[in-house]
Amino acid sequence: MVTSNHGGDIYSYAKENNEMPLDFSVNINPLGMPKGVRKILRNSVDLFSAYPDINCTLLKAAVSGYENVPQEWLAFGNGAADLIYRLVAATRPARALLPAPTFSEYELALRHAGCEIRHHSLSPDRDFILGDDILAKIPGMDMLFLCNPNNPTGGMIDSGLLKRIAAACEAGGCTLVLDECFIDLSETPDACTFKPFLAAYPNVILLKAFTKTFAMAGLRLGYCLTANTGLLERLEAASQPWIVSVPAQLAGVEALKDTAYLERARAVIAREKTYLSNAFRKHGFHVFDTRTNYILVRTEDKTGLYDALYRKGILVRKCAGFPGLDGRYFRIAIKKHTDNAVLDGALEDLYFPGETRI
Amino acid sequence: MVTSNHGGDIYSYAKENNEMPLDFSVNINPLGMPKGVRKILRNSVDLFSAYPDINCTLLKAAVSGYENVPQEWLAFGNGAADLIYRLVAATRPARALLPAPTFSEYELALRHAGCEIRHHSLSPDRDFILGDDILAKIPGMDMLFLCNPNNPTGGMIDSGLLKRIAAACEAGGCTLVLDECFIDLSETPDACTFKPFLAAYPNVILLKAFTKTFAMAGLRLGYCLTANTGLLERLEAASQPWIVSVPAQLAGVEALKDTAYLERARAVIAREKTYLSNAFRKHGFHVFDTRTNYILVRTEDKTGLYDALYRKGILVRKCAGFPGLDGRYFRIAIKKHTDNAVLDGALEDLYFPGETRI
Repeated sequence: MVTSNHGGDIYSYAKENNEMPLDFSVNINPLGMPKGVRKILRNSVDLFSAYPDINCTLLKAAVSGYENVPQEWLAFGNGAADLIYRLVAATRPARALLPAPTFSEYELALRHAGCEIRHHSLSPDRDFILGDDILAKIPGMDMLFLCNPNNPTGGMIDSGLLKRIAAACEAGGCTLVLDECFIDLSETPDACTFKPFLAAYPNVILLKAFTKTFAMAGLRLGYCLTANTGLLERLEAASQPWIVSVPAQLAGVEALKDTAYLERARAVIAREKTYLSNAFRKHGFHVFDTRTNYILVRTEDKTGLYDALYRKGILVRKCAGFPGLDGRYFRIAIKKHTDNAVLDGALEDLYFPGETRI
Repeated sequence: MVTSNHGGDIYSYAKENNEMPLDFSVNINPLGMPKGVRKILRNSVDLFSAYPDINCTLLKAAVSGYENVPQEWLAFGNGAADLIYRLVAATRPARALLPAPTFSEYELALRHAGCEIRHHSLSPDRDFILGDDILAKIPGMDMLFLCNPNNPTGGMIDSGLLKRIAAACEAGGCTLVLDECFIDLSETPDACTFKPFLAAYPNVILLKAFTKTFAMAGLRLGYCLTANTGLLERLEAASQPWIVSVPAQLAGVEALKDTAYLERARAVIAREKTYLSNAFRKHGFHVFDTRTNYILVRTEDKTGLYDALYRKGILVRKCAGFPGLDGRYFRIAIKKHTDNAVLDGALEDLYFPGETRI
């Protein structure tokens, strides 16, 4: 059995406990899958027999409209994680730079390809926000992964700095993979996305995922955007043609029709971020400022948080496995209010037991 | 747009013609998806939000029971084609041997990895059946792909020869990938599968797919079987952990519960093979003997077959792109009788127009 380095292992929990946990360990849209998506999936089962459209024709047209980029700039994957591995396989970088902490699959994909990895440490004293000091480390690198907002810290990179990084990468022949998987769940995606600058920086590839944005992680659907169409051709040569399943293609097209859904989700996240942050702060946790749908918390004395919540049927994300973090850090997804209230109550129960039990 | 080298491009047809074609160009089980699978998919949509189980716990147990091999011998993929690319990425062969004609993805995956490819020609005069002459070509090879029954010819490899090939590969340090994706739709899978010899030949990997066997190509679900557990570990390192979607895992488990389904399918295929072969023979096509759910036909004078049938809303597989074949060859899936009768009628219409029009 693979030991999970990730959140979301609700299946091991269910096997041990005969029920599903309340899962704060994965960062998906708190609204759940859009209704229209659920409906089309239920009604389209007969279409799942045939091979999927290898050109993702309808999906490509829909995403092109949603992102306002040419169809030629798009490629799809079996989740964004699939694209990470294929981008590495297609470009074969010899040396890569990664911030620490950040999403662990970048490092795993690079290591598999035999790439030499250099880490750029982010400091908790600066809320793990990327600073200008990364610029000096770019020369000599073939690939740089940046996650914006960062996972698991929730911080956003200053947009001026991001352009200077992209320019330094361009000058040094370094491919910049900018993972914006959580940007559409942030408060100001349009102000923070690098999308408007893709034409000027063909060395930049944006990663996005329906997985998180539209709460369809089980269907596996990610995509990337870049003006570098030559790279997209190499990316497609690095895998089979039938990457995106029929249900994922149908769900993707349908999700983008629900234009109000993301606005509603962002409003819930903004409101619940405050509620959930306070729920941890009142018990002495340090809560890092987040720009998206999860919060990183640190505790000096409550490092048994994971096990204590697990026994109450609640999963959170242990962050000890992230380079630069340790057993004091936990990542908590922002869910809908009723779920967050259960977590709040569980924390009260654990840490103010006298008051809540009376 | 990717130009398809494969069958099943019903989407381009539909775009041009505003209706779906009758598709004989892909080889999936003529019964369509088992009823239980369709039902569970319709009823499980709410489970598609969560990340899939990266251990494929329930699916692995079900396939282990179905195949009667230890769970440790199994790995799953986003369709069998995904496993072809990952096996190549995990083993990095420098030189590989391929029969010609055979399934084209082996060559594409090997080429992408920079592997030197040698072809072993199969002769139409021997019905494209693999002979002992391949044995002399194995020394010096790192990887050999064999498809059994072969795609697109339908021929089965003699089981004694297969063991001599496996032994020659073992002796020479060559990995033998034996693609048995169509074996469960053949008349005698148990007599033909290499499965009983996997323990003795750890250099052999079998490939199988729910895609074809259970008519769920749109869901993407393939797997491999090998006693070489070290190779499976390298295979898993070559990709993201969330490869198999929630609907694919659910569908796979459910499909294996319907024990009568494959028996029914094999009976339909056996009966319809004769009907469809005769439908082509009566118009002067040479029909190659097949052991599974598709037939290869050759024509000297009716090379316009594809376009003529396309205009009647019927897709067949042009085989000109297969090394060793040319524009005279077409592959036809064996479908259910009502569909096959439509194809029979269309051939009558095209080639005996006077008789059928009266």
